[in-house]
Amino acid sequence: MTTMPDDYAIPALSPDWLVRAQKKIDNKTKPLGSLGRIEDLAVYLSAMQESDMPRADRKLLLVFAADHGVVAEGVSAYPSEVTAQMAVNFLAGGAAINVFCRHYGIEHYLVDVGIKGDLPDHPLLIKAKIAPGTGNFAVEPAMTAEQTRQAMRIGADVFNNFYQQHGCDVLGLGEIGIGNTTAAAAIISAVTGLPPAEVTGRGTGVDDQGLARKIEAVAKSLARHRPEANDGLAILSAVGGFEIAAMCGAMLAAAEKRCCIVLDGVISTAAGLIAWLLCPQVTDYLIAGHRSVEIGQMAALDEMGLPPLLDLEMRLGEGTGAAIAISLVELAARMQREMASFEEAGVSGRLD
Amino acid sequence: MTTMPDDYAIPALSPDWLVRAQKKIDNKTKPLGSLGRIEDLAVYLSAMQESDMPRADRKLLLVFAADHGVVAEGVSAYPSEVTAQMAVNFLAGGAAINVFCRHYGIEHYLVDVGIKGDLPDHPLLIKAKIAPGTGNFAVEPAMTAEQTRQAMRIGADVFNNFYQQHGCDVLGLGEIGIGNTTAAAAIISAVTGLPPAEVTGRGTGVDDQGLARKIEAVAKSLARHRPEANDGLAILSAVGGFEIAAMCGAMLAAAEKRCCIVLDGVISTAAGLIAWLLCPQVTDYLIAGHRSVEIGQMAALDEMGLPPLLDLEMRLGEGTGAAIAISLVELAARMQREMASFEEAGVSGRLD
Repeated sequence: MTTMPDDYAIPALSPDWLVRAQKKIDNKTKPLGSLGRIEDLAVYLSAMQESDMPRADRKLLLVFAADHGVVAEGVSAYPSEVTAQMAVNFLAGGAAINVFCRHYGIEHYLVDVGIKGDLPDHPLLIKAKIAPGTGNFAVEPAMTAEQTRQAMRIGADVFNNFYQQHGCDVLGLGEIGIGNTTAAAAIISAVTGLPPAEVTGRGTGVDDQGLARKIEAVAKSLARHRPEANDGLAILSAVGGFEIAAMCGAMLAAAEKRCCIVLDGVISTAAGLIAWLLCPQVTDYLIAGHRSVEIGQMAALDEMGLPPLLDLEMRLGEGTGAAIAISLVELAARMQREMASFEEAGVSGRLD
Repeated sequence: MTTMPDDYAIPALSPDWLVRAQKKIDNKTKPLGSLGRIEDLAVYLSAMQESDMPRADRKLLLVFAADHGVVAEGVSAYPSEVTAQMAVNFLAGGAAINVFCRHYGIEHYLVDVGIKGDLPDHPLLIKAKIAPGTGNFAVEPAMTAEQTRQAMRIGADVFNNFYQQHGCDVLGLGEIGIGNTTAAAAIISAVTGLPPAEVTGRGTGVDDQGLARKIEAVAKSLARHRPEANDGLAILSAVGGFEIAAMCGAMLAAAEKRCCIVLDGVISTAAGLIAWLLCPQVTDYLIAGHRSVEIGQMAALDEMGLPPLLDLEMRLGEGTGAAIAISLVELAARMQREMASFEEAGVSGRLD
């Protein structure tokens, strides 16, 4: 096992490469700028890889799963057992993210970092349980500092192991964990300073009373733990979750390897926020896959200055929004590799 | 050759099927409504096919290409020769739409309905030239009534021939044609009654003077021909184009076969507007693939009540936005076919 360093060696994108990649695109047989966000993706991917021929065909999506003690506060429309049940559903190939990954040819694994209950061995399952669920952060810290670091290490290790064996151009992050939109809201409130009511959504679909309980749980937890807004590890330990810490570790490791990282919804974006506090450079490698219906997500994306790529009114999680966005990253890579230039195609230039 | 009927036998979607499809989705292992627009696509596709197991793997994208006499008014940043040059680029596989279709596994063909200049024989080329470009509609009708009907018949025949041989679940529509955003703007202004300045965009990227000439050409043409706002064929003949009429014919034929049709940018949306005037039922089968940067497109989509699926700030045409959206239609079909229900997966239901 590698250890999680305190300093992250994430290389900054070279401005020269950004310019060079845009210049290559501007010579392709199309009106200037006419591929919009696809051009942006191609530019960033080229700069991440420092290549005129970027690739995004080695696609990995990791679904980190864990349970949350805060469910005791009545914050979810579903019981905690659903986390393990959905994990089994994933292993059987019947979850939404299985369908999405099959459709877009994305390799995908489930990483159990803290599910309540045991799962059978399975080729798609990576067993790395830290504990069967976090503490209820309304009344105690979600994790110890050591558990937090352990979860981050697991995320980094899972990515690094895959990377060493197969390589990876683009990593998508997803999660399963009843209660985790409450943890994400608490993180986002702690980092942005926005009141809990402005960053807490309905998650799996709680009613008005459930939403009030969620907001109350977030407010209570922040009043109790009072983490500093810029202390990522303290926030993560106090109100985070095993899967959130693992996602954070995975993205820091991926950015060190110049791998493009695609965020999904509010949970992975909250993990991104912590990664950004620990190493601001990480945002060079982050793509906001889609705008989630969960209100806290946009607050977190705005804080990092990341515009979402898609808005399909989704809020399912599991990495579903990320999977669609990954296919656009791959499309952008192919555009940069395969589209002809005006010169190659013998197409006339502009009249002016 | 089939003839283009004046009455279109487009079957209305059954409300029962819409309800039945949504009910199936609501039993899948995910929070209610959490797949947003993907659920809408699955519902409509199920109702189009009257099937609980809809499919969208037989994917076709037709790129209709033609030239436009109105280019003489100085409305484009590129000369007319670029239409033939881009057609050759398409046949060599170097155009954006080739890359997009390869990425998403979409069969694609180019249909020459009116390119200035001759193209070599090619397996991806369907030769059906009506004339080498339309008339300059600022000073004369773009097409005769017979040419308009002929172009519509060609579009219908190309679709029907493919459909009979291979079947088709989803049809995307694209175009190549220097000058055709001016024709689209004229159509949209004629149908919606909006002033030319509000529906005319920069197309391939004209400067302010070029934009002023485009607006002037649209205004001049409508003042000269004065087509009735509800007379689709008159508008099409007066200010349309061969490729626009062909797209219109193709979509009416596809809707008759209960095939899902994905619009691209402002040109195919203008063609959709004419199809909608001729047979309002056609919109049951139309998906607005994306929101284009070209301002006229949203006016046309609003007129038909079609919300765009994506907004990637694109304005390339060729069917590029449609190709991305087609992959989402296929994703929706697979979601409806492959995702487990709560019962199948043994996942607990909501607490309330």
